[in-house]
Amino acid sequence: MSKTEQNGEKQISSAVIRRLPRYFRYLRELIRNNIMRISSKDLAEKMNVTASLIRQDLNCFGGFGQQGYGYNVKYLYNEISTILGVDKHYSAVIIGMGNLGHALANNPLFEKRNVAIKGLFDVSDNVIGKKVGELTIMDMANVTDFCRENKIDIAVLTLPKPEAPAAAKLLAKAGVRGFWNFSNMELSLPEYSVKIENIHLGDTLMTLCYELAKEDNESEKDEI
Amino acid sequence: MSKTEQNGEKQISSAVIRRLPRYFRYLRELIRNNIMRISSKDLAEKMNVTASLIRQDLNCFGGFGQQGYGYNVKYLYNEISTILGVDKHYSAVIIGMGNLGHALANNPLFEKRNVAIKGLFDVSDNVIGKKVGELTIMDMANVTDFCRENKIDIAVLTLPKPEAPAAAKLLAKAGVRGFWNFSNMELSLPEYSVKIENIHLGDTLMTLCYELAKEDNESEKDEI
Repeated sequence: MSKTEQNGEKQISSAVIRRLPRYFRYLRELIRNNIMRISSKDLAEKMNVTASLIRQDLNCFGGFGQQGYGYNVKYLYNEISTILGVDKHYSAVIIGMGNLGHALANNPLFEKRNVAIKGLFDVSDNVIGKKVGELTIMDMANVTDFCRENKIDIAVLTLPKPEAPAAAKLLAKAGVRGFWNFSNMELSLPEYSVKIENIHLGDTLMTLCYELAKEDNESEKDEI
Repeated sequence: MSKTEQNGEKQISSAVIRRLPRYFRYLRELIRNNIMRISSKDLAEKMNVTASLIRQDLNCFGGFGQQGYGYNVKYLYNEISTILGVDKHYSAVIIGMGNLGHALANNPLFEKRNVAIKGLFDVSDNVIGKKVGELTIMDMANVTDFCRENKIDIAVLTLPKPEAPAAAKLLAKAGVRGFWNFSNMELSLPEYSVKIENIHLGDTLMTLCYELAKEDNESEKDEI
């Protein structure tokens, strides 16, 4: 069996998977700039990681760089695209049409990922019936029927924390099998076979503050 | 030197640092629920990672669990809080008051992280002068003076991609030293000593789609 054949069956760790979208973005950028070969060292510098991490990650899916020649950018890009399933199409609803719901509804990232936003939902009479782009915000009371009828794959949860678990259960029952959860709580639905991405925007702000605090501590030390 | 003393000087890898906010959230939740001891196994189950990763991470900053007794939740929480610098206070501006800018301006996460939003900026006459909470959206033309006078630490970039690099340079010159960048481009300012967190919301959507695609592929295989 060739390495490429093996690759289809190989288990890739979730840590590597989480890094793949970043590789995907960088490789796409390289292709756009007509760069068709890159060394692990140059890619590492661009991505601000170590060259050994890159070699290790890319080896996972058959990206074997050639000594003194580097990686074939297009080959890697295609491999990663296939692994990530970027050619698949999914449908989604946004639950909770506050500012974040609006920001996401208008965001081109869904189209880029082949995710079609089919419906927007809220519980508030202040927004139900309002148009956002091509879509009209619907009453949350109708979400179950809508998701069943339209075979919705993904729910984007931008509703307040206390309301998230009940809404998610309702949606899972209606056949939704992926949750992109911005409600700032760790959603867990062990009784349903669903995939959940819990987003905590604050985590990266915390990392940034950590970096600033570290710098402050170091300059305080220098002053002593 | 005791292990705790060592800890203050120890270099912690950036991969561990990136996981700390998650530990921080889980430990806070445990304290809220009056759980003062937890085994690596139970914490691992809650956080959906391996127990060995938890032991390895927590060892980095002196969190030594006791066999059959587990970790002291409060001790770990305090250690992580100190490392992350959650007691430090920083000031911030939001650049770009579209839907995402509004969503962030109204978000309690800044207050939770001791980051005070001091100013909101945009280039469009349609929004300049409008109130968002206690603040009035200001003209981007005044951003340099404002950041200098108010010693702004952090800029939240929610402006369109093409405008981000120039705005960031302007802000870095005005003394801003941390960038929380939502403009969907990899910001890099090597000529300034600044910290940058590039946020790519689409990456986690991609990971979610990957999980769904994997499931689809597996069920297709089962059908053959």
